[in-house]
Amino acid sequence: MDAFTPKPEDRFTFGLWTVGWQARDPFGDASRAPLDPVESVHRLAELGAYGVTFHDDDLLAVEPDRDRAVDAFKRALAGTGLKVPMATTNLFTHPVFKDGAFTSNDRDVRRYAIRKVMRNLDLAAELGATTYVCWGGREGAESDAAKDIRAALSRYKEAMDLLGSYVIDKGYDIRFAIEPKPNEPRGDILLPTVGHALAFINELEHADRVGLNPEVGHEQMAGLNFVHGIAQALWHGKLFHIDLNGQHGPKYDQDFIFGHGDVKSAFFLVDLLENGGYDGPRHFDYKPLRTEDASDVWDSAAANMRTYLILKEKSKAFRADPEVREALVNSRVGELAEPTLAPGETLADLEREDFDVDKLAERGFHFTRLNQLAIEHLLGVR
Amino acid sequence: MDAFTPKPEDRFTFGLWTVGWQARDPFGDASRAPLDPVESVHRLAELGAYGVTFHDDDLLAVEPDRDRAVDAFKRALAGTGLKVPMATTNLFTHPVFKDGAFTSNDRDVRRYAIRKVMRNLDLAAELGATTYVCWGGREGAESDAAKDIRAALSRYKEAMDLLGSYVIDKGYDIRFAIEPKPNEPRGDILLPTVGHALAFINELEHADRVGLNPEVGHEQMAGLNFVHGIAQALWHGKLFHIDLNGQHGPKYDQDFIFGHGDVKSAFFLVDLLENGGYDGPRHFDYKPLRTEDASDVWDSAAANMRTYLILKEKSKAFRADPEVREALVNSRVGELAEPTLAPGETLADLEREDFDVDKLAERGFHFTRLNQLAIEHLLGVR
Amino acid sequence: MDAFTPKPEDRFTFGLWTVGWQARDPFGDASRAPLDPVESVHRLAELGAYGVTFHDDDLLAVEPDRDRAVDAFKRALAGTGLKVPMATTNLFTHPVFKDGAFTSNDRDVRRYAIRKVMRNLDLAAELGATTYVCWGGREGAESDAAKDIRAALSRYKEAMDLLGSYVIDKGYDIRFAIEPKPNEPRGDILLPTVGHALAFINELEHADRVGLNPEVGHEQMAGLNFVHGIAQALWHGKLFHIDLNGQHGPKYDQDFIFGHGDVKSAFFLVDLLENGGYDGPRHFDYKPLRTEDASDVWDSAAANMRTYLILKEKSKAFRADPEVREALVNSRVGELAEPTLAPGETLADLEREDFDVDKLAERGFHFTRLNQLAIEHLLGVR
Amino acid sequence: MDAFTPKPEDRFTFGLWTVGWQARDPFGDASRAPLDPVESVHRLAELGAYGVTFHDDDLLAVEPDRDRAVDAFKRALAGTGLKVPMATTNLFTHPVFKDGAFTSNDRDVRRYAIRKVMRNLDLAAELGATTYVCWGGREGAESDAAKDIRAALSRYKEAMDLLGSYVIDKGYDIRFAIEPKPNEPRGDILLPTVGHALAFINELEHADRVGLNPEVGHEQMAGLNFVHGIAQALWHGKLFHIDLNGQHGPKYDQDFIFGHGDVKSAFFLVDLLENGGYDGPRHFDYKPLRTEDASDVWDSAAANMRTYLILKEKSKAFRADPEVREALVNSRVGELAEPTLAPGETLADLEREDFDVDKLAERGFHFTRLNQLAIEHLLGVR
Repeated sequence: MDAFTPKPEDRFTFGLWTVGWQARDPFGDASRAPLDPVESVHRLAELGAYGVTFHDDDLLAVEPDRDRAVDAFKRALAGTGLKVPMATTNLFTHPVFKDGAFTSNDRDVRRYAIRKVMRNLDLAAELGATTYVCWGGREGAESDAAKDIRAALSRYKEAMDLLGSYVIDKGYDIRFAIEPKPNEPRGDILLPTVGHALAFINELEHADRVGLNPEVGHEQMAGLNFVHGIAQALWHGKLFHIDLNGQHGPKYDQDFIFGHGDVKSAFFLVDLLENGGYDGPRHFDYKPLRTEDASDVWDSAAANMRTYLILKEKSKAFRADPEVREALVNSRVGELAEPTLAPGETLADLEREDFDVDKLAERGFHFTRLNQLAIEHLLGVR
Repeated sequence: MDAFTPKPEDRFTFGLWTVGWQARDPFGDASRAPLDPVESVHRLAELGAYGVTFHDDDLLAVEPDRDRAVDAFKRALAGTGLKVPMATTNLFTHPVFKDGAFTSNDRDVRRYAIRKVMRNLDLAAELGATTYVCWGGREGAESDAAKDIRAALSRYKEAMDLLGSYVIDKGYDIRFAIEPKPNEPRGDILLPTVGHALAFINELEHADRVGLNPEVGHEQMAGLNFVHGIAQALWHGKLFHIDLNGQHGPKYDQDFIFGHGDVKSAFFLVDLLENGGYDGPRHFDYKPLRTEDASDVWDSAAANMRTYLILKEKSKAFRADPEVREALVNSRVGELAEPTLAPGETLADLEREDFDVDKLAERGFHFTRLNQLAIEHLLGVR
Repeated sequence: MDAFTPKPEDRFTFGLWTVGWQARDPFGDASRAPLDPVESVHRLAELGAYGVTFHDDDLLAVEPDRDRAVDAFKRALAGTGLKVPMATTNLFTHPVFKDGAFTSNDRDVRRYAIRKVMRNLDLAAELGATTYVCWGGREGAESDAAKDIRAALSRYKEAMDLLGSYVIDKGYDIRFAIEPKPNEPRGDILLPTVGHALAFINELEHADRVGLNPEVGHEQMAGLNFVHGIAQALWHGKLFHIDLNGQHGPKYDQDFIFGHGDVKSAFFLVDLLENGGYDGPRHFDYKPLRTEDASDVWDSAAANMRTYLILKEKSKAFRADPEVREALVNSRVGELAEPTLAPGETLADLEREDFDVDKLAERGFHFTRLNQLAIEHLLGVR
Repeated sequence: MDAFTPKPEDRFTFGLWTVGWQARDPFGDASRAPLDPVESVHRLAELGAYGVTFHDDDLLAVEPDRDRAVDAFKRALAGTGLKVPMATTNLFTHPVFKDGAFTSNDRDVRRYAIRKVMRNLDLAAELGATTYVCWGGREGAESDAAKDIRAALSRYKEAMDLLGSYVIDKGYDIRFAIEPKPNEPRGDILLPTVGHALAFINELEHADRVGLNPEVGHEQMAGLNFVHGIAQALWHGKLFHIDLNGQHGPKYDQDFIFGHGDVKSAFFLVDLLENGGYDGPRHFDYKPLRTEDASDVWDSAAANMRTYLILKEKSKAFRADPEVREALVNSRVGELAEPTLAPGETLADLEREDFDVDKLAERGFHFTRLNQLAIEHLLGVR
């Protein structure tokens, strides 16, 4: 037991589909046997997790009878104290969703998709989940001729509005969290980034019930700065949930262990989450490498939590370091919180001001020193 | 004169900084002499353009006295009939903006930036511009330690709110159009995509006065589908202006001639602009290649317009082709406009419906045929 | 029947795994039934193909008995006249290859991999294949700690040298073609580009027997210009085979129909293949979209060939156009074939030459006109 | 003074153009004054560097008279003891090189380029440089119509062959190091990666005199693993020199401080350089951020060296850790150095071996534990 040993109060959660991934990939068959959700619950509890999350279909991994699968899952939760803060629907594996779920060109598919979500919302509520993630991985197209994007957004909105009403009518204490992704498995996916999803939410009937579940790797697949994306989501009050993992830039969706991708970005992300007002679960949505065996899987689950806690400690040390504080002042970082116009000042006042622009341009920002301090805290040499 | 010869009613416009680019790049000195804005106006008029657009500093290319530069420019406009539908501010070239303009950590710089915009808004109004583009190319950071992103978004909002008030107070018939970009010249730029900017606009005081000016290459630098982005902007009613050019995926900002990047995407873009309700200028924001001489520059300007008109003709033929219409039906493209719930239908009704999911999954979408028809129209073999 | 109807003399070939792809992807189950290789042979023959290619395991799609599967395949070939110019080994689907085949850290796996290739080389020779493709899709790593890259290259060389000797000893008329890919399914794959594979080949014992099988999408996944890559492969005399398909830049491996990705690049590729001395098969390695049904699959196969033939016609017209020829001269394209030193000239002579560099810099290259002519040929408006 | 204070024996070198960069970028004017090479030499010596490197034109930053500039530079070198292990030619800034230098379509330009290199080779030899870098940043094209790539490679070879002969004739102790880059400032650059350049070198007349100068950011702009690239270069015996800096994936060329990009990759790079037999200079080719003032520049230079030394210490600790050694064995990393065939064993022997493939597939590789140990060493928590 050290400072990096996870405890339930750290609120670490895992999707059943993460540790349970059998490692089937586009070029390969499964390299691991199916995993009983009951075992996952027990193992994650032993490792110090706070909770688990699930797709409807995840529960059926080893027990095809839904009622028995749910019962066994509930007993495991009761036995371990693990929570289910979030649930979601699998709207992508079955070939019926090959052209999308809420936005399939085929209206019958759209109808089935909504019904599938409703059914799992009932179970989510029953298990105490308060966040319901919507990843529209199949909502998209490979060809611009094949999809009327504006109609698709209207259907997407229709579905979200209907599901919002459903939850309200049932009296469920559930909010929705949309998970953006730019591509894969579709050539282009609708709501490809944090920004597109935030904009979309503004058009919804129950916009206050809908926020985001951004995933590290998804934004990085578009070469975007994930920390910036999360900051903007927080600024809009819409960071409802988060998916932590690792990725190496624009390529296939890698779902590495948290911190095993861009570790510097992971540091600043933890720094933001811990100091930026986010109080939801720290949810890992990663895949244990296909090279690993059943026992390595639990090492990988543990590595996610341990890396997070290491980075959390570093964030504390970074913020407490007097040299960092001085460097922040020298780089005028805090000055950005100051309004540009003073209280009571008008644009007319501003117009009268005289600027020596060339003089102003000479001021250095000294970001180098600040960056280097951050790197040295990350590397543990301060 | 053929069907592809541009006419003013086609509403093609060019930034003065496009044809006037001297081809200074990060590794090279200028390869062309400065170009007099007056010459640009005359040459573009001869080529069939509708108007020109400008940054405040563009006017000073060969005449450093602002009043005389403006006068000469006005006379050229009057002499040719060219319009100025859009104007913008250069908030990036001078080193004073090295850490941003509206979101520089240095409050004095932020104040200067707002004043610089106000001054050019007056000129924009005087010249009849109704759109004012804001490209925040320097609003960003290279290090996550150096910039408080949430504070930056608040300052960005403060600036947009102040400028909105300024325009309203002055009674100008001007709307703002934010131009997103993911990176370059900053490591990461704020409001990196169409989506992020759309979301931001929703938080503004004068949100109805603020829309987008998306640029082809900027979205493609993030590997995003530009046609999807424009469709979403239209869906939100926020496509106020557009920057047309060419790019080859995630790399430096290439600003090629329109259609000289991803020509298939350019075809679907023209198809959407011509049929999707956009009625603003078709604005080219490209750079003539650095290899080219002063005379090649005008060939490049002409090539933008000609390519657009060629693609416009193709869009018409594509939409009129009976085989395309049949293929659209077979691919159920129109079916997506149909609400998923029927009028009067409830979720309770839907819950009672019986779905044979495996049967449903067997339906093919026949997108291949539709895509191939589009390709063949693009290639001119139908 | 038109000019774009494929005929066997066009030498179009398809992998059995292309039309036979059941559309299992990282997030989804199969959307199509397994396809009998015998049916594929007959359908491709009807469509005008020249031949088929196969992985050892492809033959077992519907007939698990290898001997019977091979017999049925041979009868179909005999019945249709289709050739098998190329064969290859599946060293990626079975979980035994999870850390690679020739370069797995596990020596037993490496031994098995070599044996699996040898066995299929015998069949390849028996079926008349003269090219044997090696795609090392699993040769790579997700972590720099886990793989000794120099040792891996030595093992890769060992395997290629052994297989080269095997083919020579058996007297097979077979050359090897290495297929580079940057990533997916591994985080980073060895020999990631055309360049890396060309360099590697130089170190092989039987280097003259080993060349390349570059794939359009693989190079484009690294943002590289495929036409440049093929030109360099030709320059080295190493273009032994080619995989044609479509891709939209750095993202997951899309394997679209040829021309359905970057169609401008496809045009210049066909132009190079037809005029650059390549005389091997035009091999399509694509995947029919997952949205498509069994019948759409054949439309997709036909679309590959038809698009190639369309682009071939355009290449002819482009090269024959007198305006293009003039533009090529004006852009000094042919001048590059002229040696920089004249025959008999020495560096000492060159040192004495006087250059007016600024004058020289004024010459424009007029590439704009040339590019636009190419675009207009592509679009079929010339 | 601590373990991370650089000393000349660490062999750190800097390009004059790095600290001397005035921060002119594609969208902005210089933010810093020109820097006297003499000052750079003195400051770098004080910081603990071993040497400096230069382009011919760098020397003229503040003293336009070449002879006086060279004299002043020599005196500074003599006064500080700094070495000049490498030199290079600027073949990209002047507009004469707008279509390339050795491969410009314009033969007169090609001739001038060769002469410019010869002249600076004389100075390089005089100053004791033993490596001469060739970065062909302008050798490339924006359009496939405009450049005959095979002819370009022949001209590239002609130039390298001539320069090789020149150096041999003069008796200079100089080797050439080609620096690959995929794009920027050209749309596509010839020899875009480590692999392409390695392949090219094999065709040269004086191939033994020509190796590589790979740059961290250049390979990462193509999404490639730089550590893999360096390992392959070492495997071929061609790592003659190296450019260290930082980059965040496929976007514009960022030239960050070493370690300020992908710091995990930087760790494995240092680990490879220190243990892999490279004994050349550790050369930094970075740009101080444009936000920084004249004094920040020296902080940035120091940060490069300090970060390298920190990572070097970590590499030592990682390799010495008994748990790491055990993990390496468990992951069979060393087993890859073992030949796949035993001494004396034949393929016929291998054919007789019996494999239980499914059994073999069950072995886990335990890479997770190894990766996590590496991460924890990097983060300084072991």
